[in-house]
Amino acid sequence: MQNNLLENERIDDLQRNGYRIIQNPEKFCFGMDAVLLSGFANVKQQEKALDLGTGTGIIPILLKAKTKGAHFTGLEIQKESADMARRSVVLNGLEKDIEIVTGDIKDASELFGASSFDIITTNPPYMIGQHGLQNGNEAKTIARHEILCDLEDILREGSRLLREHGRFYMVHRPFRLAEILSKMCAYRIEPKRMRLVYPYADKEPNMVLIEGLKGGKPRMTVEKPLIVYQEPGVYTDEIYEIYGY
Amino acid sequence: MQNNLLENERIDDLQRNGYRIIQNPEKFCFGMDAVLLSGFANVKQQEKALDLGTGTGIIPILLKAKTKGAHFTGLEIQKESADMARRSVVLNGLEKDIEIVTGDIKDASELFGASSFDIITTNPPYMIGQHGLQNGNEAKTIARHEILCDLEDILREGSRLLREHGRFYMVHRPFRLAEILSKMCAYRIEPKRMRLVYPYADKEPNMVLIEGLKGGKPRMTVEKPLIVYQEPGVYTDEIYEIYGY
Repeated sequence: MQNNLLENERIDDLQRNGYRIIQNPEKFCFGMDAVLLSGFANVKQQEKALDLGTGTGIIPILLKAKTKGAHFTGLEIQKESADMARRSVVLNGLEKDIEIVTGDIKDASELFGASSFDIITTNPPYMIGQHGLQNGNEAKTIARHEILCDLEDILREGSRLLREHGRFYMVHRPFRLAEILSKMCAYRIEPKRMRLVYPYADKEPNMVLIEGLKGGKPRMTVEKPLIVYQEPGVYTDEIYEIYGY
Repeated sequence: MQNNLLENERIDDLQRNGYRIIQNPEKFCFGMDAVLLSGFANVKQQEKALDLGTGTGIIPILLKAKTKGAHFTGLEIQKESADMARRSVVLNGLEKDIEIVTGDIKDASELFGASSFDIITTNPPYMIGQHGLQNGNEAKTIARHEILCDLEDILREGSRLLREHGRFYMVHRPFRLAEILSKMCAYRIEPKRMRLVYPYADKEPNMVLIEGLKGGKPRMTVEKPLIVYQEPGVYTDEIYEIYGY
């Protein structure tokens, strides 16, 4: 398989089922966000899941490893990333379980049809427009900034794509929480479960994990804090467990 | 002053400026929610604050003790509570600083006029309608359940009562967070700061403290967790500090 790697690409071990992933550190590598989302999302037997903006396919691959879901689809607009994701699927022999589709989130409900999934997952760009934008490569910029799609696109398409009572899982930044919860409600994806991720027990959270239920009734659970580090360089037991070390 | 106490009433020391409060444990005593809100709210010199649903006046009295605010008003619909609050104001010699008004939150903007306050605080009823309602006394029921007013009333009136860029401080329950943030946005009270209160570091939060800015731009800070107990019966240092022990 090493022969299939393009320039600067490498293969990383995911510590789950022996699965591996192809990444290009010059472009974009998955972060803790994707791993935590895959630990937070709950995909049951028989359920079909779609990951919006799948990048190198990390979330479908981890969900295949961690859950009993029936089938996983990853949608990615960037051809190079989608190609890498497809090669990772082959590398792991998961062609029957995971399909990678090249396409635009903004057209996703047209592409796949309304009410066609039980589960939507997404680790979308966090930053508004060009805010905080550094000169850098295009792949990273598209993955991090709302340039090709924004939160509104993701919730609108996510809501259309989900069957009634289907579940929506997203990781995002706490500074956008008011907008996230408001727009989820506006698109009938009722927020049901939320967990804040704190780098240390006495610091502000830097990630938020959210589960929404399409057509659900209002009432949400805020879960206990997810703390990442017990001391500098040392993860908490829960993080080690999610990573599968 | 003991002579002014009615049946079942008692005087409690607030551990702040020597201030005391008259309460009736048969009716409703203030809880940790009110104390935490008074520690979370920020009232600056020259600012005029209104507390919606002030009960026995605990929040105006604590804010007078802790901040340099120019004047504090408490609005309370229950005559007995308002009367107790007024007697506590006299007990502390704060007649020039705190006014207790008997009246309905639903009419508050008519009562006081639009844009008439810099600060709104509120520790409103948490429970929806009769949900979880126990047979009990009317005063407690009204304080805990949305019977005489609901979240919508409080945000609508709060928004009208605040001057542009005035600040709104509320303590509530996390299970209603989606509704709280959505409705704050709908009434132009932009959520700017939020802190979750966890009874223990590894438990679900049971309170949420929120600051909104009327006419503010979207972007909020979620603060570090506020943990109540370090072990059963022993508060954390931060809680002791807020209580002023």
